[in-house]
Amino acid sequence: MRNTFGHLFTLTTFGESHGVAVGGVIDGFPAGIDIDMEFVQNELNRRRPGQSHITTSRNEADKVEFLSGVFEGKSTGTPIGFEVRNTNQHSQDYENMRCLFRPSHADYTYYNKYGIRDHRGGGRSSARITIARCVGGALAKLALRQLGISITAYTSQVGDIALERDYHLYDLSKTEDNIVRCPDQQKAKEMEELIAQVKADGDTIGGVITCVIKGCPVGLGEPEFDKLHAQLGAAMLGINAVKGFEYGEGFDGVTARGSQQNDKFVPGITTATNHSGGIQGGISNGQDIYFRVAFKPVATILKEQDTVDLEGNATKLTARGRHDPCVLPRAVPVVEAMAAMVILDSYLVNKSVKL
Amino acid sequence: MRNTFGHLFTLTTFGESHGVAVGGVIDGFPAGIDIDMEFVQNELNRRRPGQSHITTSRNEADKVEFLSGVFEGKSTGTPIGFEVRNTNQHSQDYENMRCLFRPSHADYTYYNKYGIRDHRGGGRSSARITIARCVGGALAKLALRQLGISITAYTSQVGDIALERDYHLYDLSKTEDNIVRCPDQQKAKEMEELIAQVKADGDTIGGVITCVIKGCPVGLGEPEFDKLHAQLGAAMLGINAVKGFEYGEGFDGVTARGSQQNDKFVPGITTATNHSGGIQGGISNGQDIYFRVAFKPVATILKEQDTVDLEGNATKLTARGRHDPCVLPRAVPVVEAMAAMVILDSYLVNKSVKL
Amino acid sequence: MRNTFGHLFTLTTFGESHGVAVGGVIDGFPAGIDIDMEFVQNELNRRRPGQSHITTSRNEADKVEFLSGVFEGKSTGTPIGFEVRNTNQHSQDYENMRCLFRPSHADYTYYNKYGIRDHRGGGRSSARITIARCVGGALAKLALRQLGISITAYTSQVGDIALERDYHLYDLSKTEDNIVRCPDQQKAKEMEELIAQVKADGDTIGGVITCVIKGCPVGLGEPEFDKLHAQLGAAMLGINAVKGFEYGEGFDGVTARGSQQNDKFVPGITTATNHSGGIQGGISNGQDIYFRVAFKPVATILKEQDTVDLEGNATKLTARGRHDPCVLPRAVPVVEAMAAMVILDSYLVNKSVKL
Amino acid sequence: MRNTFGHLFTLTTFGESHGVAVGGVIDGFPAGIDIDMEFVQNELNRRRPGQSHITTSRNEADKVEFLSGVFEGKSTGTPIGFEVRNTNQHSQDYENMRCLFRPSHADYTYYNKYGIRDHRGGGRSSARITIARCVGGALAKLALRQLGISITAYTSQVGDIALERDYHLYDLSKTEDNIVRCPDQQKAKEMEELIAQVKADGDTIGGVITCVIKGCPVGLGEPEFDKLHAQLGAAMLGINAVKGFEYGEGFDGVTARGSQQNDKFVPGITTATNHSGGIQGGISNGQDIYFRVAFKPVATILKEQDTVDLEGNATKLTARGRHDPCVLPRAVPVVEAMAAMVILDSYLVNKSVKL
Repeated sequence: MRNTFGHLFTLTTFGESHGVAVGGVIDGFPAGIDIDMEFVQNELNRRRPGQSHITTSRNEADKVEFLSGVFEGKSTGTPIGFEVRNTNQHSQDYENMRCLFRPSHADYTYYNKYGIRDHRGGGRSSARITIARCVGGALAKLALRQLGISITAYTSQVGDIALERDYHLYDLSKTEDNIVRCPDQQKAKEMEELIAQVKADGDTIGGVITCVIKGCPVGLGEPEFDKLHAQLGAAMLGINAVKGFEYGEGFDGVTARGSQQNDKFVPGITTATNHSGGIQGGISNGQDIYFRVAFKPVATILKEQDTVDLEGNATKLTARGRHDPCVLPRAVPVVEAMAAMVILDSYLVNKSVKL
Repeated sequence: MRNTFGHLFTLTTFGESHGVAVGGVIDGFPAGIDIDMEFVQNELNRRRPGQSHITTSRNEADKVEFLSGVFEGKSTGTPIGFEVRNTNQHSQDYENMRCLFRPSHADYTYYNKYGIRDHRGGGRSSARITIARCVGGALAKLALRQLGISITAYTSQVGDIALERDYHLYDLSKTEDNIVRCPDQQKAKEMEELIAQVKADGDTIGGVITCVIKGCPVGLGEPEFDKLHAQLGAAMLGINAVKGFEYGEGFDGVTARGSQQNDKFVPGITTATNHSGGIQGGISNGQDIYFRVAFKPVATILKEQDTVDLEGNATKLTARGRHDPCVLPRAVPVVEAMAAMVILDSYLVNKSVKL
Repeated sequence: MRNTFGHLFTLTTFGESHGVAVGGVIDGFPAGIDIDMEFVQNELNRRRPGQSHITTSRNEADKVEFLSGVFEGKSTGTPIGFEVRNTNQHSQDYENMRCLFRPSHADYTYYNKYGIRDHRGGGRSSARITIARCVGGALAKLALRQLGISITAYTSQVGDIALERDYHLYDLSKTEDNIVRCPDQQKAKEMEELIAQVKADGDTIGGVITCVIKGCPVGLGEPEFDKLHAQLGAAMLGINAVKGFEYGEGFDGVTARGSQQNDKFVPGITTATNHSGGIQGGISNGQDIYFRVAFKPVATILKEQDTVDLEGNATKLTARGRHDPCVLPRAVPVVEAMAAMVILDSYLVNKSVKL
Repeated sequence: MRNTFGHLFTLTTFGESHGVAVGGVIDGFPAGIDIDMEFVQNELNRRRPGQSHITTSRNEADKVEFLSGVFEGKSTGTPIGFEVRNTNQHSQDYENMRCLFRPSHADYTYYNKYGIRDHRGGGRSSARITIARCVGGALAKLALRQLGISITAYTSQVGDIALERDYHLYDLSKTEDNIVRCPDQQKAKEMEELIAQVKADGDTIGGVITCVIKGCPVGLGEPEFDKLHAQLGAAMLGINAVKGFEYGEGFDGVTARGSQQNDKFVPGITTATNHSGGIQGGISNGQDIYFRVAFKPVATILKEQDTVDLEGNATKLTARGRHDPCVLPRAVPVVEAMAAMVILDSYLVNKSVKL
């Protein structure tokens, strides 16, 4: 509900872009797991602003502090509180936004829903709040590692530059070798150039992130309303700027016939193909789970835009200073984090279906 | 969780394809709403099998009986239990499926997850269980009608035959004028022919359903994890055979630049365009909400298929008798039902954000 | 929430005293459990009205029908829908109550909360709806039996006639030997006489039910807000007419000193005493769990009472026909049922605290 | 679930006695409420250790810091993160407890449940974690004040020294005039002397706290499983050391007859008496809500006790330094806080029962 994610493994988040801190509480994390603090911080670093020339130049250390739930290096089964203090905020950059609504931002909807809003940065709707997700996801990954489950996301499209849909064609271990987080180094270079040009224009561009989950055991996902792909979809759609989710053959598969798309079983027991995307009837079948997530170009651009003020009068908006021309490179770890939390939570819930 | 949908307005479902009955419990439905029984039954009739020559020939009356929660024609605020008895089951048609796994069905995953399965029809994973959703959605629609909110879905693509993406180009009041539930009568004819041919082949075909919500007030949706589109996405992905969800410009919008896709505000206060799809920052902004749902071809085909038995030995499967060549015409009311429940639930939750 | 009880094992109920049926949906019941239908029906029979001369003379068969989730005698892990049709309703007995509020009934509060009420019998607030709890509890008991956990409740006080607090002093296997469900046959006789006299007066009387849970493993209960005793307390307080709950030494123990009441550990590892009532820090410690539940005299009496009508005008009320002079004998199985559901649910949740 | 309390207004807590900090996240707090920081801190001060000679001498400032959700002095409707750093911990005092189980503490159950425990202080089971509840309760009180709802708790019994049950006999505005938090100054003096003597003995003593809620509107509470008193009971039973809960006439009322205890309605519409305790059928009826909470003597005593070590060998335990002879004076604000959160949450949920 609202700011809590998950069923048995849960993450409750707090924080605004320009408040004191962002953070959260992780509950239901299994006891006795080694907490590799360096790994957690590294996951945060992957989504840190200012990490390369094609991301926003807001530059923050984003150092996480754990407040509870870890004792002598291990999780204790009690809630894990954590926070990242906000340090490089430039709140004054946003003073001119106090009285107007930025196009395609959440300003207007928040203001109407709550009757009040923190106009500095995106407030609660800022992408900065995905920090808490990365921490939750990092812990989930540590638990999944013990189960032999790995999760890898990569940038598969930026604007018109797209990889082939089939993830088998790429060596996903190369994803972190470039700042775009794309396993095809040539395409990565093209994407980087496109983003750099878009940035120079003061504009933004969207794209697609593909994610692959390997080693997932059979049985995760809870019909009727917690099918595994429905949980993954909800998790992805909750990430800022996401406009679409598809798994397996997705939208492309609608033109095929059942006789072409059915995955026949072969002795093993396994399937000869994996059009289904590793999930059948809402439950993982042991094959790779793969899905794609569509990101729109983010709303903050440096070009002048028409808009209205709080009273509805026409006015002009020019954002100052910094913007993120393409959110995808920094969103890759967020996609992984959300997927990791869904899988761990589903794993724990699935333990209850037999006595 | 699992078989319960929603937060304040909830639907809990039960039932298998070949059990005694399917049904559910609706909780949190507002008190004092007139329950138009004819309307509810009609919504069920829209998803009834056997309603036209291009759907499955399983023919059931699907008559709903309310067991509680309605008194002298009005909702009382107490839980509304209901059921639809299963009558035309032909369980013996499925006897040969007791010992094998049908390709791309949920047989294998259910069997592994639970260690037991009801092999008759789809059991719990049958599309028959969407009956309960239609009843819940019908009640939700009755409440939303009082709020001036309408929800209309239509078949926008079958196989390669597709409408334009922009729903404004069609008169949605014509959707029910043909058995495909497509507002373009010419395209509907083509779709009908394609489905008839696919049926004759004993095969199946997928497609896309588009849904439009009009009259939704500003403010629905609860960040951080219950964004309105995330709730809609999860609801749609929970429908049988759904492989993808996108709202607003969706996957197509990833190639645009922010300066092209931002919806500028104009005095009113409204937006000049609606690329966002009626939702910004996870909260409805008062514009039309629209989204698209991808359906794969359903797994049951009448052609012979390779598969394995419970021990993993290779065998052949030939399904008998009846199949549904294209699920979309009957899925249109299910999409509407799920959307209606999300919107009503969000409306009720949103009442709590101010004292 | 509202009409759903539990976390992983859940019961969602529906039904009014004079509606079509009462029933519910059990979700999250483990797969593969043998469903002993006779046992389930027998549990219902223990709470059936009209079972002896000291209960209400409303006489209903209360025959349960399962609608789903059980296949070839075993639970399948899918939701179990069930219903009990209402047959002996005498709704006309209540026609004079349509326009007035019965003292200490839920008439006034329901009417104000919902703006509408089903005035026949108790409507939704009737003790009749505990039928669904007994069904849920019966299934939970079947699962707990496999785990070696047993739950026994008994009438320990009626009016001023009370057993000693210490349950060890009684042979609980004798509880069902009398119609009061009290293990002390002499006290049971006195209680029976008291209830018979109260019934003859057209009045009602309260009492206390004690419940003992044996064989519960260490570790059930989830701090911080789902402590095992807090869950048990909420479950008991949700039963009609319950006014108090205490476990271990309860209210009597407040006068003791810590040095007297601490349960010292002795090699084993076990405790020398069990003042704690089998729960420490909200988690079961392997000792017997015991608690006491206070029931007020139920509100329906046959004596004339002052009250007001819907407009607030003073009037007189005389209930007709039948009433339940003492709810305790029939509430014993309800107490057991609620306890069984709490323990099974906690058992399932506890499986998730380690990977 | 677990460390999250509430439905729409929720508090998620974290922290151990000797960790970095205790704190939490408040979600669903209505937007636009003035946050009186001084009031919040003062509520915390009421439960602060070391506030008088009859409480523990652990002395901490317990200064709360808000991290989000409050902007320019008002709540924004977004989650409110907060923390209180632990400063005066004396963890070395507990080194001798690393390898043994303290009688009637949660050491044994935590160790068995999680396979690991933070042995310093009570760890997660410490009364120190009620800090987060006081912060949540303070905010809830600020919202309830706008609704005209007040909540007052007081110490009504310590050991054998007890006030009369009827709260009308006391001037509750005098509760804070003494360090015991008892409205009867003479009894307060006796209680204070008893506690001082118990403290000198290195022992502990229990008691009863009574709580009264005034101004509660008709309609709060959600049958079937979220009856208002069931929610209050669960909230109280979740407080450390609580062993019992009763409302209205409670356990004493079981000996009365229905004709004596029914609250007859009189024109107004109101009731002539309030034996029911302000709740009928699980829903508030507009009368004062009152209930009593039993606290056992806390387990930490300074006397030598027999116990066992982790391997089950007999050993002796002598706690060092500081202990809390009677938890009641400091528990009074915790009782109020939990009640305030239940009432605010119920108020928000109740808004959804009508469209």
